[in-house]
Amino acid sequence: MNIGILGAGMVGQTLAASLASLGHSVAVGTRNVSALMARTEPGPYGNPPYASWAREHPAVTTRTLAEAAAHGDIVFNVLAGGAALEGLRAAGAQNLAGKILVDVSNPLDFSKGFPPFLSVANTDSLGEQIQRAFPATKVVKALNTVNAMLMVDPRQLNGGDHSLFVCGNDEVARNEVVRLLGEWFGWSDVIELGDITNARGTEQLLPMWVRLYGRLQTPMFNFKIVR
Amino acid sequence: MNIGILGAGMVGQTLAASLASLGHSVAVGTRNVSALMARTEPGPYGNPPYASWAREHPAVTTRTLAEAAAHGDIVFNVLAGGAALEGLRAAGAQNLAGKILVDVSNPLDFSKGFPPFLSVANTDSLGEQIQRAFPATKVVKALNTVNAMLMVDPRQLNGGDHSLFVCGNDEVARNEVVRLLGEWFGWSDVIELGDITNARGTEQLLPMWVRLYGRLQTPMFNFKIVR
Repeated sequence: MNIGILGAGMVGQTLAASLASLGHSVAVGTRNVSALMARTEPGPYGNPPYASWAREHPAVTTRTLAEAAAHGDIVFNVLAGGAALEGLRAAGAQNLAGKILVDVSNPLDFSKGFPPFLSVANTDSLGEQIQRAFPATKVVKALNTVNAMLMVDPRQLNGGDHSLFVCGNDEVARNEVVRLLGEWFGWSDVIELGDITNARGTEQLLPMWVRLYGRLQTPMFNFKIVR
Repeated sequence: MNIGILGAGMVGQTLAASLASLGHSVAVGTRNVSALMARTEPGPYGNPPYASWAREHPAVTTRTLAEAAAHGDIVFNVLAGGAALEGLRAAGAQNLAGKILVDVSNPLDFSKGFPPFLSVANTDSLGEQIQRAFPATKVVKALNTVNAMLMVDPRQLNGGDHSLFVCGNDEVARNEVVRLLGEWFGWSDVIELGDITNARGTEQLLPMWVRLYGRLQTPMFNFKIVR
């Protein structure tokens, strides 16, 4: 499958490496390819600069946001929450039209320090904002409630016995994402919540997530819905 | 122990019955005792009117908010979120001073229908508002993320293998609440988050909780933090 990944940070790299290793044709999209490739300083988590990562993953191509979106039969939004709408506009509505956009982004605002607050919450959500801005795209919110390492390998934690949430207005698209999350990464407990307004629920898990991260001192945890 | 429970709804009744059955001296507080006792219509969940419940639980006394607060060595706030601050003012700061107030309330606003939104969220919380309004009281937010039946008997669900969260500014008070939740009700996985600003995290679980309730069609579920 051709897959476009909008965003070249840790989440984008982790998803791209995993999907490329499964044999998919993966394009990572970024605002300015040459600027990204020219960076020599380590990433925010001490990870190597993007160009080093790209050299180790030659099957993954690095392109503009518009090219990566056009490449994908399915597209992931892993842009930082505050940059997501602008980045998606740069990707281009025509390159996203008719496609599933898996929205992994969270509207975290770190401008007042840690823990961050949400730049949109409660009576709206980033997932809904994106769906409104791209009405011809099937936005499916998913994977935004777990660390990147768990996204692509949930069995690293407790044999995968924990939960993920999917929501979006298009039921067929939701079902397809649930199927792909199982097939690609091994997610076995994916709860389909319903339409994209449910993104208010999943994005508002983040204030709890960041506090638990502070408390547990590891991002290797997840919510399980015991029922 | 003398326990005051502010709020006579389903949560108050469930906590009062459980704590009285453990031998504690429990006073349920309500705005207007005679009005509550005179009610003959069933409760919002089809439960019997309060007076019927009270007759079946003769060990529990029904008093004004101020009397119930004065009675308690420890006090529970189980008032509806939108009525909590006013109810606590009626209970009286002097009757709550120096005591642990277990704040179970959630700022759910149903004025626009279901699912509700939060009347305070993201950059503040009801728990913080209550702590600011009653600085001499040790507010400990707890139990607000589960259904009343689970609050008092977590082992009804998956043998009790799911999580609860406690936060508050006073560490000794937090520890005491963790201890009591285990001793009284059998909670074994209680995560102490830290100060009362963590109520932003636990209250913002509610938008997810109400959506899961709609999806799962039962309130007998809970979050477990798998780690």
